[in-house]
Amino acid sequence: MRVVVALGGNALLKRGEPMTADVQRENVKIAARALAPVAGEHELVLSHGNGPQVGLLALQSDAYKEVEAYPLDVLGAQTQGMIGYMIEQELGNLLPIEKPFASLLTMVEVDPNDPAFQNPTKFVGPVYEKVAERLAEEKGWSIKQDGQYWRRVVPSPLPRQIFEHRPIKWLLEKGTIVICAGGGGIPTMYDLEKKNTLIGVEAVIDKDYCTALLARDVEADLYIMATDIDGVYLDWGTPDARKIDRITHTELESYDFAAGSMGPKVAAACAFARVTGRRAAIGALADIEAIVAGEAGTNVEKG
Amino acid sequence: MRVVVALGGNALLKRGEPMTADVQRENVKIAARALAPVAGEHELVLSHGNGPQVGLLALQSDAYKEVEAYPLDVLGAQTQGMIGYMIEQELGNLLPIEKPFASLLTMVEVDPNDPAFQNPTKFVGPVYEKVAERLAEEKGWSIKQDGQYWRRVVPSPLPRQIFEHRPIKWLLEKGTIVICAGGGGIPTMYDLEKKNTLIGVEAVIDKDYCTALLARDVEADLYIMATDIDGVYLDWGTPDARKIDRITHTELESYDFAAGSMGPKVAAACAFARVTGRRAAIGALADIEAIVAGEAGTNVEKG
Repeated sequence: MRVVVALGGNALLKRGEPMTADVQRENVKIAARALAPVAGEHELVLSHGNGPQVGLLALQSDAYKEVEAYPLDVLGAQTQGMIGYMIEQELGNLLPIEKPFASLLTMVEVDPNDPAFQNPTKFVGPVYEKVAERLAEEKGWSIKQDGQYWRRVVPSPLPRQIFEHRPIKWLLEKGTIVICAGGGGIPTMYDLEKKNTLIGVEAVIDKDYCTALLARDVEADLYIMATDIDGVYLDWGTPDARKIDRITHTELESYDFAAGSMGPKVAAACAFARVTGRRAAIGALADIEAIVAGEAGTNVEKG
Repeated sequence: MRVVVALGGNALLKRGEPMTADVQRENVKIAARALAPVAGEHELVLSHGNGPQVGLLALQSDAYKEVEAYPLDVLGAQTQGMIGYMIEQELGNLLPIEKPFASLLTMVEVDPNDPAFQNPTKFVGPVYEKVAERLAEEKGWSIKQDGQYWRRVVPSPLPRQIFEHRPIKWLLEKGTIVICAGGGGIPTMYDLEKKNTLIGVEAVIDKDYCTALLARDVEADLYIMATDIDGVYLDWGTPDARKIDRITHTELESYDFAAGSMGPKVAAACAFARVTGRRAAIGALADIEAIVAGEAGTNVEKG
């Protein structure tokens, strides 16, 4: 089987944990141990979140005052380098030495007319005690209140195209484990003034949507979103909470899930199942072997 | 022809220039314009230096005091992400949209018994006003004097193996422009205690040596080291200075070049020509088309 797995950002760096390189690596080792049996038996493409990591790089870039802080597309590319390296090394350590690996930088096209650009929603970078209007004006940032602080927000447009989808597929056909589309891909768009010129964008693309597109591009048999919860629940947080084991995309789409929680994962799973007719699953990384076998997680099928 | 080009670190960020993202991008654009005609006509693998960039990330990582600074292997992986992204985007903007690109993270094995580990020589990271003995002891660093300041030094071991050489070759065979081995690769070694376990190393691998190994691995017809000087000179800095246009590896090896200037490039060119019987060249990035044609630079052949 050809399996595409999106690793949740929190699988690699949990909220509240110190963001050191050692902590990241320990979490990558845990993820690698869960993934190794799947990687040994199936064709595997791995994507991963980068929320906490891009936040850290933004803070570091901001802390060094001699050079202007770097834009989000460049910081995103840096996190693809850092996280891809750790995953490639740690997963490689658990597999036969002959197994080929490739971690590819991934650029993703977004639409400059995406409505997300009118309504930035993703918090990034340092928190400010005050509204920081001057900073916002100076840098052209949008700033919103985040709890008791103020923070920069950026748009989260939909992914339109993954530029490297052919190399990813060629490598899969050779049995390579491919790590790509980290953080939802590096956000880029065609310049409105200079035709055919691709430029970076200060935005964050949802990793689960992006990986759904990737799974379609590489004609995956199965698309798994691996997180720290064992599946999708109805009536979550109430005494009636119950996990969905198997569901059609039509029925799943009839329920409401919060944008901040399972919403994007559910939408990405339904889109993949509807368009391809193949299975999408949402579940715990620790259960991934059973999810591949269809025996754990929430499994979404066309219908 | 299959051409491997090592781009000098100074081609992307010159000494004394502000290290902003915009300055880096402008330099990448200049490099891309020089490379585009070659990329359009030949199979192309590009590697690049990362000295100034890894220095910047070390300073940023050091400036943010909430989280312990990241080790050099991880910072190197970050620079592969950042620089690979900029090159892929800017070179892509000059070529037909169908041209496939792949920027691969590259891990390189070094030998834990390499004599370089006994004699660290590469300066990295911030400068310190004092000997910083406490810092050195605390972090296990070697510190040496660099002009009037003190600075961390790390070893520069030889590259033994490029782990991703098969994916690089497979992508080339499909006509993909491959960007890889940035900064000489991410330095790694097998753990002396845990067998078959690859770990990161605090070291810097010479980019020109590493790319020579890469050029051998992918069976390149031509290996070019593109820098800001138009070739190798005999009696450089004297009134007798004269550029070498064409030379055998045996004759070139009979001359002495300083370790800090042309030494590593000359050694890498000679090694490639000797082992493969194919041409290596050292010259200016601006002349790269003429170098490919054998009409510029210093051309080294077996003999």
